[in-house]
Amino acid sequence: MSSDSFSDGAERNDSEAVVSATDPIRTKIKQAVTDVHEQTPLAQSFTNFVTINLVANAQLAAGGTAAMSYLPDDVIATAEIAGSNYINVGTLLPFFKDALPEIAYKLHKNGKTWVLDPVAAGIGETRTAILESFRAYPPTIVRGNASEIIALDEIWGLADAAASSTPTTRPAGVETVDEVDTAVDAAKRVALHLAKRSPVGKGAVAVSGTVDLVTDGERTFRLPGGSAMMTKITGAGCSLGGVTATYLAVSEPLVAALSASLLYNRASEIAETKSDGPGSFQVALLDALWNVTADQVATSKIIETD
Amino acid sequence: MSSDSFSDGAERNDSEAVVSATDPIRTKIKQAVTDVHEQTPLAQSFTNFVTINLVANAQLAAGGTAAMSYLPDDVIATAEIAGSNYINVGTLLPFFKDALPEIAYKLHKNGKTWVLDPVAAGIGETRTAILESFRAYPPTIVRGNASEIIALDEIWGLADAAASSTPTTRPAGVETVDEVDTAVDAAKRVALHLAKRSPVGKGAVAVSGTVDLVTDGERTFRLPGGSAMMTKITGAGCSLGGVTATYLAVSEPLVAALSASLLYNRASEIAETKSDGPGSFQVALLDALWNVTADQVATSKIIETD
Amino acid sequence: MSSDSFSDGAERNDSEAVVSATDPIRTKIKQAVTDVHEQTPLAQSFTNFVTINLVANAQLAAGGTAAMSYLPDDVIATAEIAGSNYINVGTLLPFFKDALPEIAYKLHKNGKTWVLDPVAAGIGETRTAILESFRAYPPTIVRGNASEIIALDEIWGLADAAASSTPTTRPAGVETVDEVDTAVDAAKRVALHLAKRSPVGKGAVAVSGTVDLVTDGERTFRLPGGSAMMTKITGAGCSLGGVTATYLAVSEPLVAALSASLLYNRASEIAETKSDGPGSFQVALLDALWNVTADQVATSKIIETD
Repeated sequence: MSSDSFSDGAERNDSEAVVSATDPIRTKIKQAVTDVHEQTPLAQSFTNFVTINLVANAQLAAGGTAAMSYLPDDVIATAEIAGSNYINVGTLLPFFKDALPEIAYKLHKNGKTWVLDPVAAGIGETRTAILESFRAYPPTIVRGNASEIIALDEIWGLADAAASSTPTTRPAGVETVDEVDTAVDAAKRVALHLAKRSPVGKGAVAVSGTVDLVTDGERTFRLPGGSAMMTKITGAGCSLGGVTATYLAVSEPLVAALSASLLYNRASEIAETKSDGPGSFQVALLDALWNVTADQVATSKIIETD
Repeated sequence: MSSDSFSDGAERNDSEAVVSATDPIRTKIKQAVTDVHEQTPLAQSFTNFVTINLVANAQLAAGGTAAMSYLPDDVIATAEIAGSNYINVGTLLPFFKDALPEIAYKLHKNGKTWVLDPVAAGIGETRTAILESFRAYPPTIVRGNASEIIALDEIWGLADAAASSTPTTRPAGVETVDEVDTAVDAAKRVALHLAKRSPVGKGAVAVSGTVDLVTDGERTFRLPGGSAMMTKITGAGCSLGGVTATYLAVSEPLVAALSASLLYNRASEIAETKSDGPGSFQVALLDALWNVTADQVATSKIIETD
Repeated sequence: MSSDSFSDGAERNDSEAVVSATDPIRTKIKQAVTDVHEQTPLAQSFTNFVTINLVANAQLAAGGTAAMSYLPDDVIATAEIAGSNYINVGTLLPFFKDALPEIAYKLHKNGKTWVLDPVAAGIGETRTAILESFRAYPPTIVRGNASEIIALDEIWGLADAAASSTPTTRPAGVETVDEVDTAVDAAKRVALHLAKRSPVGKGAVAVSGTVDLVTDGERTFRLPGGSAMMTKITGAGCSLGGVTATYLAVSEPLVAALSASLLYNRASEIAETKSDGPGSFQVALLDALWNVTADQVATSKIIETD
């Protein structure tokens, strides 16, 4: 498959290598996918109103179960019986400004893992204030597009003085403005910050794009493949964040982020071949999330990079 | 079909009997399904944000019409032109704590019928406070899973002293923890409580599970069949609650609860044969809710039990 | 095709004429549909929770991009990078009463265009107060059913004294109560009112029904066709409003309203032939919104009327 590495958008250079078939990370990925199907873990979501239904259905299709909550007392009570949690800051309501910092603090205090999707990071004062508050009680995994990861890195002030002297001023938002490559350094910095306060001692960041990037700050992987139709339905990224939480309920952050992104890439490729437009694509995506096997996910092409 | 009664999960014993083809209840069920298709009654919903779209689409597919509201003034104004109403306490927001008791009181005062889905009963102080407030101004029908019906029975303190000396302590929630059989007594108690303050003099409880159970406190029925895929999409139960309200607009509570549960069982069986996973299952379920006939619903296997 | 004009519900009389194949309006419609596919404009929505997912997916399927917001600071910040905006008053929450008038004022002050869907106009004091507040800082386009357009005309007090001496007292609401023809005068008055304060100097009103009506107050068009299945899914109208905002990002109000309604009519006709019920109809509708060409939209039958 090495001859494909240029044509699939993942350019290979000296600092990149395809992860071998016997790499232990593949065993862990296969185990995570298998465990979700056998244990049907509950992942709880505090997520936006646009794609809340797809998030829940994707978690179910991946083999998990779902519960959605907004009130702090609901979220904290449900976190006691959930394997992991997911917070998505897409469609903010006024009470979120107080509720989300409180929830992040209590999840941290109670040693609960959670995935953050920083949707539209950089837009709106309220969203910035909420994301800023997560710096002290951070998630275990962050999943977003390049613009959002870069914006979060800036909001948390993780870049060094040199880097911050050239601030990014383009609008970040719900649409991917930046390519994944531009977010590599930010993703690593964010991942290392997550690890510092993680209840499981580790963190991970997944950057979605034409070629996804997943890092725990030490090892970094590129995941080629997927389907361009993912940008023609709403909630592809949001539901990937939710499914990442499903995997986080049974595995370490890096493995959870890899497993979820790989599952989505394989499922979206299948869905593209079975659909005539975005309506049937979403239906076929849910079917494929349900039908893709642990072997299919674990034998995916994975490229390790610096 | 009697030889199937053991294999379909509905064990028959001396206190059970298949409802005959000429039982008047079947005539009433057929009439209810027919009336919905002919009258397209409006059922109003105050429901959770996860499955609100499926609730509306299911009500439309069953032949009714839908309107969703949250503000008390909206709900009470719309109730004036609606045939029935539906309240689902899935994803609570802060203002629900005041709004829902006010709405329940005003629906009661105005003699309006409504269906309650006590999603996640037992989780969170706010939800418990809201459900407790419904004791005085109760719904006409309650539809939930076994855990939720048991939790509601406890929140309302309907069990006698002996029973309450062995409190249930396992977490109730959005997932079915208890089997339907464990909720029979609670369901009957709740149904009798509903009847006491019902604007139509009667109440009913539907417990969803592998074999559904429907009771008005006096007669109790088990409804075998359906599809396990119903647990692999979000909102199967929520939308069943909404369609129960659609039927309640044209029939008495026991008939409405039976009609809706039977329609769902027949539709989900058809959908299972036409789908390749949870995505296409949900699509096929809506199609089947639209295509299943009043005859198919009314001739379903129904088992009467003690 | 003229012999069809009676059978498709669009009665022709002396004051009506089919718009010719060379009418400049058709060139503008074709350009609008083409521009959306090439420019993928962002339309921002503040919309109801029932159909928010379908609105976003329809905007994507039509070729645009979507962002949904509720907080005034989010909405105003996003409006800076959006081509147009959409407000739908379907499922009101308490904070909407202050947020929506503030948003309308700021969109006006910042010269931003927006589309209003006055869902359930006439029901509930809060909704009436919100709609009333829009009189001073009105949308650029209003899209609704006949009942809603008539109710909005009344709330804004646009009818003359003679007309208002025979007030309409039937309940308006989410269901179409009035036929499109009854709303012609109200639609023209509303369109002229919108034009007065429009940032682009013009306004338009689209009335959805068996035969849609679109007017800018000076020219009025009837658009035959479509599918009765549109009334059997939730959100057909809401998502049409959202797609109207997508077109408004690239064209003048009258052209945007015509383009969106024509796209929906063509897409729903295709979807009807490819579906077995409301579930598969919605899937096929999104596919068709994606696949219908600019030519198919621009060569639609359009009837100009007084």
